[in-house]
Amino acid sequence: MSAGTAISGMSEAGVLDVLYSGLGERWLSGEHVVLSGGDDAAILSASSGSYVVSTDTMIEGQDFLHRWPNGTAQPAQSIGFKAIAQNVSDINAMGAETTGVFISLSVPSSTTTAWIREFGQGVSKALAELGAEQAVVAGGDLGHSPQIAITVTVTGELTGPPLLRSQAQEGDVIYVAGNLGKSAAGLEALLSEKSLENHGHLIQDHFFPRPPLGTGGRATDLGVKCGMDISDGLLKDLDRILNASGKHLGAQLDTQELIPFANYLRDAAQALHKNAWEWVLSGGEDYGLLVTAPKHILLPPEFHSIGRVIALGENGGPQIQVTTAAPDDASEIHEVLTGARQGWDHFG
Amino acid sequence: MSAGTAISGMSEAGVLDVLYSGLGERWLSGEHVVLSGGDDAAILSASSGSYVVSTDTMIEGQDFLHRWPNGTAQPAQSIGFKAIAQNVSDINAMGAETTGVFISLSVPSSTTTAWIREFGQGVSKALAELGAEQAVVAGGDLGHSPQIAITVTVTGELTGPPLLRSQAQEGDVIYVAGNLGKSAAGLEALLSEKSLENHGHLIQDHFFPRPPLGTGGRATDLGVKCGMDISDGLLKDLDRILNASGKHLGAQLDTQELIPFANYLRDAAQALHKNAWEWVLSGGEDYGLLVTAPKHILLPPEFHSIGRVIALGENGGPQIQVTTAAPDDASEIHEVLTGARQGWDHFG
Repeated sequence: MSAGTAISGMSEAGVLDVLYSGLGERWLSGEHVVLSGGDDAAILSASSGSYVVSTDTMIEGQDFLHRWPNGTAQPAQSIGFKAIAQNVSDINAMGAETTGVFISLSVPSSTTTAWIREFGQGVSKALAELGAEQAVVAGGDLGHSPQIAITVTVTGELTGPPLLRSQAQEGDVIYVAGNLGKSAAGLEALLSEKSLENHGHLIQDHFFPRPPLGTGGRATDLGVKCGMDISDGLLKDLDRILNASGKHLGAQLDTQELIPFANYLRDAAQALHKNAWEWVLSGGEDYGLLVTAPKHILLPPEFHSIGRVIALGENGGPQIQVTTAAPDDASEIHEVLTGARQGWDHFG
Repeated sequence: MSAGTAISGMSEAGVLDVLYSGLGERWLSGEHVVLSGGDDAAILSASSGSYVVSTDTMIEGQDFLHRWPNGTAQPAQSIGFKAIAQNVSDINAMGAETTGVFISLSVPSSTTTAWIREFGQGVSKALAELGAEQAVVAGGDLGHSPQIAITVTVTGELTGPPLLRSQAQEGDVIYVAGNLGKSAAGLEALLSEKSLENHGHLIQDHFFPRPPLGTGGRATDLGVKCGMDISDGLLKDLDRILNASGKHLGAQLDTQELIPFANYLRDAAQALHKNAWEWVLSGGEDYGLLVTAPKHILLPPEFHSIGRVIALGENGGPQIQVTTAAPDDASEIHEVLTGARQGWDHFG
């Protein structure tokens, strides 16, 4: 079967073989998996007696494009990588380790064996490079669809009490680990018609996001109880933590430790006539980890302290306030905060 | 929000509320679920220290149609029902009980709130009517897609050793529980342009398939080790068991106990100029349970004995042989067996 052959006419087992050839034997068995693939369901072990489960879907045309407006082709490896990254990020954000991965892949008949193989390579690359060595692809489903549709479900094992979004307390320090704004900047570059020869690394950050696996477990080991991953942007996801944790909670953000994230994006922002702070504060899909922790807990340097959880008065006021010393940043940040209040959580 | 409103412009939380209003509070918490929804992942308990997981995808236009060639509209309740039925069937076929249900639903913006609500009602109806009372809808994902795409993932708890497809032994008796051929007959009616006023019940059998939940656990309790669900047709799935269980295994089927299944479908087969035995032997999506068991194990009457696992000679011969006393049946069955050898497992 040559690299570019369409799968039309192949058996399901044949297409699975191609997928597994990209994935590699390495990821098909492991200590947590009692039984994988082949039967009606996989069997996994849960030594702690409990386990965590998360699921996410990516649809061609909605969550990725084969070719972007700026002319860049999105490699199949990126699709497999992202599908894994967003799910293992959820498991990390519970303070858990991924054990089982289940891939439901629906594709048009015109899909090539090369695409399927490279998709599998992307899955393998994500598990290896993000540090999910203990994970196993234990099952899934293969079918037809006019557009490519991928649902990945992952199971995980807790190493301690979970990280929950409902556990923020007044006085907690707010921390982020991982990247902020890179994926959003890359997305903007892909959507732009400008040539961005110097910003190809941001496109790679969008194609291959890097959730900081292990940070969730390290935080819970130190006693942290509150956290979630940043999939929809720092402000929006912080808002979710505040709302889940009780009435009258707000946040006072200090931009000091966020400045390096913004600086990293300044050139691209200028080239695209965009606001770098928009990407840092509202950009999604970097899958960083957001936690809040009592002041006495000392987190390692991979966690950046970015503010405090505060009590709001009875009359409320803006739930998230931002202080900054630099006037240029202040106006850019103000613009983000104003826009954010309108733009969140719109479905249609 | 009126029943027919499109979800375009609604918040994700708003659409979820509609889904949950159809589903009902009843299915949102339960003993196996430590934490459901809201956070990055759900947490489930596994009292036995192990758990089973299965996932399946349904795509509009591939796995269901809003309106069929014969004019019948497929109710949204049917889509939710089928998505659950095929997954809880997999868990039953492992000899397990469903604990957690995770629904990833991707829909066009033009989808109405009525459709979403009725889909949720279909999920609820399946869990209640099929007998998965202990299950909980513990999480999921909501997104956009040009066609409706639904991936359901279910987790389950084993009550004993699992039912595996690799455990058939020479001399085992072959049994089926549940329905055979009804869903395929209903599908044929839906695809026909003939009016079939007297066969609406078969269309209902296609829209609301009824896997015999509990049969898997009852079989393993009696010591049965080999089984799987019939999602692609009796012959094809029996073939999978024989191939998974070792070289040179075949099956000798006796049609005696299958005759009532064929008789039930005769009128419809005649009206549609089809072969009722084709539906019984090769029809999928009834999600019956297929097991093989040593002769000394006595299974309850819900299991129909339909043949024996035999050893094939070194030279093979047809892997599945069928004996029947009735000449009319013989020619119809011969036709099915001849066609089946060519038609299986074609992907594109």
